[in-house]
Amino acid sequence: VSGEIVCLSGGVGGAKLALGLYRVLPPGGLVLGLNTGDDFTHLGLEVWPDFDTALYTLSGLGDRERGWGRADETWSFMDAVRGWGGEDWFNLGDRDLATHVLRTQALRAGQRPAEVADRLARAAGLTARLTPVSDDPVRTVIDTADGALAFQDYFVRHRAQPTIVGVRYEGAETAGLASVLDGYLSRPDIAGVVIAPSNPLLSIGPMLAIEPLRRALKACTAPVVAVTPIVGGAAIKGPTAQNLSDLSMEVSPVAVAGLYSDLIDGFVLDAKDRGQEPAIRDLGLDCRVAQTVMTTDTEKCELAREVIDFLAQLRTRSGLRHGRV
Amino acid sequence: VSGEIVCLSGGVGGAKLALGLYRVLPPGGLVLGLNTGDDFTHLGLEVWPDFDTALYTLSGLGDRERGWGRADETWSFMDAVRGWGGEDWFNLGDRDLATHVLRTQALRAGQRPAEVADRLARAAGLTARLTPVSDDPVRTVIDTADGALAFQDYFVRHRAQPTIVGVRYEGAETAGLASVLDGYLSRPDIAGVVIAPSNPLLSIGPMLAIEPLRRALKACTAPVVAVTPIVGGAAIKGPTAQNLSDLSMEVSPVAVAGLYSDLIDGFVLDAKDRGQEPAIRDLGLDCRVAQTVMTTDTEKCELAREVIDFLAQLRTRSGLRHGRV
Repeated sequence: VSGEIVCLSGGVGGAKLALGLYRVLPPGGLVLGLNTGDDFTHLGLEVWPDFDTALYTLSGLGDRERGWGRADETWSFMDAVRGWGGEDWFNLGDRDLATHVLRTQALRAGQRPAEVADRLARAAGLTARLTPVSDDPVRTVIDTADGALAFQDYFVRHRAQPTIVGVRYEGAETAGLASVLDGYLSRPDIAGVVIAPSNPLLSIGPMLAIEPLRRALKACTAPVVAVTPIVGGAAIKGPTAQNLSDLSMEVSPVAVAGLYSDLIDGFVLDAKDRGQEPAIRDLGLDCRVAQTVMTTDTEKCELAREVIDFLAQLRTRSGLRHGRV
Repeated sequence: VSGEIVCLSGGVGGAKLALGLYRVLPPGGLVLGLNTGDDFTHLGLEVWPDFDTALYTLSGLGDRERGWGRADETWSFMDAVRGWGGEDWFNLGDRDLATHVLRTQALRAGQRPAEVADRLARAAGLTARLTPVSDDPVRTVIDTADGALAFQDYFVRHRAQPTIVGVRYEGAETAGLASVLDGYLSRPDIAGVVIAPSNPLLSIGPMLAIEPLRRALKACTAPVVAVTPIVGGAAIKGPTAQNLSDLSMEVSPVAVAGLYSDLIDGFVLDAKDRGQEPAIRDLGLDCRVAQTVMTTDTEKCELAREVIDFLAQLRTRSGLRHGRV
């Protein structure tokens, strides 16, 4: 590989591919843009669930069993919060808390989110660049039959049970693009861009709602691909399938590819869904069939290699999609 | 006993007598005003060491071995802070952290310190009133040969080692008196006021530097007594003796009584120092000799009973000191 890969990712699912890319690419080869739509202020602390999942996953600080939070975690803080009658619906581990406390302190002192992210990634010893997609707040709001819910209210407090009637990304219309991403996306020598297999409505949606990011992706001269979060008509993890069906969308790779089709050149389909290859191509997209369900680290690296190879192949083509620019 | 007792206290030493008073007095009988000179913002969190020591000690949540912090404490947060390269010179336990996080959130949301204190005390199930002596910030600054140090810098980071050349109470000149204390001190039916056996320069000093508190003590028609923090020429705990000698003050109960003599009617001397009774009386103060070193809970309750009895005795006198009003 020559040139960096920019990966846009949500939490647990996306972080698996990000880990594969991080392992396979040379030092400095991965630039990871994280969804901020899940971010919220909880107990006065700035909590960035998707960023932290990526930070912990790539650095090996994460709990591999749970997929979120830190390894060797203890829960005395939550226990004490409960004792004081405080809000205990969102679990914050004692080790994890250090991240939130130090981040909150830095943000309150006037540091930009991207600076704080950069310092955390370096402190964790990462050679990848990690950045929130924007320094400006974007908050995912879920409209349900019973009213609007902030993302974590929907996802954690209500366990993603309420039926969705709409999704909004508050702040997205005025949000700028993080300078790291702006820089890399405008460079002709990057290897390409990957949209990770994250929830298209709740993880990728809040990022793609940021107009400067859409513009940068459309103007990007390197190839852009997405990896399916849907395999065999179901989501690998989380409420993606239910979300799509709540909004009367087809639960299929093609439906997801359709959401991104004005921004991407190629789509990675799972081997189980190879029958949908013609439908992907009908969207004007290149298609790669691969094993997209990542359980082991080996599988994460294998998918990463497929994606890198796919980008390299698209690069050698005479030209990328017209529709993008 | 009839009527409440107002106790002004610092941390560990004072909290022992406060616990005795709390155990001995009927529910609602103790009003505890805490030193705020040690309070500081650490890692973006509002930490109130003396208040928390009292809160934990009275509620039984505290660690009896250490004398500060919570029982059954874990230290994962500190470990993680260290891992991020954060400031680790001030130990914050995981359970203890819940107090700081919830308090910081409440203060940032605009609640007054006294309200926050009241909510914590009630949440801990206490029937005593606990209040910072002022809602306005007072910060103890230690002048040393090597320059000025914030209190916790001196006390924790430098382990109370530097030689003191002066002590200042920043903010004290404009600080008001907490309304709970203002209310009780102006009531003629309280049983009296006790200045706990805390460091006169670093714990009691920051409180007595608040002019409205001095005025309220002078105007108080109930008896006011202080308990010696010096026994046999040494402090029971902490740097009190060293502090007094650094500032060329005598390390004796009489020297401490002298610091308070315009505000108090009586002084409680340790049995070891009964020879100083005449010198105390020469200051125009009544004197009670008692066992002031409190190791067991029984000893805390016994000293509390002595103090209560002393206040009752002073009450029956024809009049309190003229000098006070």
